[in-house]
Amino acid sequence: MNDLEKQLAFILEIDKLKAVYRQTTVKEDKNRSENSAEHSWHIALTAQLLQEYAEYSIDINRVVKMLLIHDIIEIDAGDLFAFAETKDHDLQALKEEKAAQRLFGLLPKQQYNEYKTLWFEFEAAETHDAQFAKSMDRILPLVQNMNNQGGSWVKHKVKQSQVLARNSYLQFIAPKLWEYVISQTDLAVSNGWLIKD
Amino acid sequence: MNDLEKQLAFILEIDKLKAVYRQTTVKEDKNRSENSAEHSWHIALTAQLLQEYAEYSIDINRVVKMLLIHDIIEIDAGDLFAFAETKDHDLQALKEEKAAQRLFGLLPKQQYNEYKTLWFEFEAAETHDAQFAKSMDRILPLVQNMNNQGGSWVKHKVKQSQVLARNSYLQFIAPKLWEYVISQTDLAVSNGWLIKD
Repeated sequence: MNDLEKQLAFILEIDKLKAVYRQTTVKEDKNRSENSAEHSWHIALTAQLLQEYAEYSIDINRVVKMLLIHDIIEIDAGDLFAFAETKDHDLQALKEEKAAQRLFGLLPKQQYNEYKTLWFEFEAAETHDAQFAKSMDRILPLVQNMNNQGGSWVKHKVKQSQVLARNSYLQFIAPKLWEYVISQTDLAVSNGWLIKD
Repeated sequence: MNDLEKQLAFILEIDKLKAVYRQTTVKEDKNRSENSAEHSWHIALTAQLLQEYAEYSIDINRVVKMLLIHDIIEIDAGDLFAFAETKDHDLQALKEEKAAQRLFGLLPKQQYNEYKTLWFEFEAAETHDAQFAKSMDRILPLVQNMNNQGGSWVKHKVKQSQVLARNSYLQFIAPKLWEYVISQTDLAVSNGWLIKD
């Protein structure tokens, strides 16, 4: 295959992300489950819109690129609920690495290296770009659940401490958004949408 | 409302794009209709992947930004099928301008100006960035239809000349992709997926 054929094969393969469903629901569409492709769009835009709250210098274009590809591995590995058991998260990490090899491996070599490296950077969350990207990926479901009477939190009986732990990157990378998250989880507790602990 | 509240209001409002359905279908998800949010994700990544075929210098980050927002106006204006009548396209353009005012108007002033200007640039398609963005938005449904036994072309009895006219930006902005489009439409005609004229 020439490069264009490889790129088009990848473009068609990732169509499958539209069939990977998450725990969050789309309020405006009869509360059907959200899929990871539309989530990826939403989160890329969210990062652009909220970039001014980053406490450290970030390259927003790299952040957007990371977020556009961050869930592609779910085509093979599936979506794991954020508040699943630790052992499930460990198994998931292995599945995702294998998925990254296969899926990005459809691309020409240079793009394969670029995307795989970017995805590993996102997963490791050691750079400011990755930390900001990851924190956007975590604050958006909170915003959606708050707008949807607790949404997936209620269904899965989630605790306030779990949501705070999951959003704790914000404390460092975007303190103003961290304050917002704290106040929203307090409100969720008082509404009975999160369990106080 | 402060800026963060305005930004979050916009982020929640655009959730509605996940409920705007297009003519293209998602082959891997029982051929259900594709929505404009997941399409926006797909097209933003397609532009990044195919940027090397741009004949002129483009700023891929602006292209991606355009593509992430290009369909938001459909929340108010709906999606019009690409091969609808000209008078319907004229009416649609008016609806979309109004939609851009209302939707981007939810954002703080500076972001409102930035996004509205970017959307107008996309629509006008006079810059290389906008032409490349627009041509990506048009080549992707072709790739999807070719992978789906003609998809929406067959359903709506579309002619080869219509698909070529719709993809004609490529002739100028990405000649190698234009050649690909011609060969694919020839193949579609011989498969009975497009009408020869």
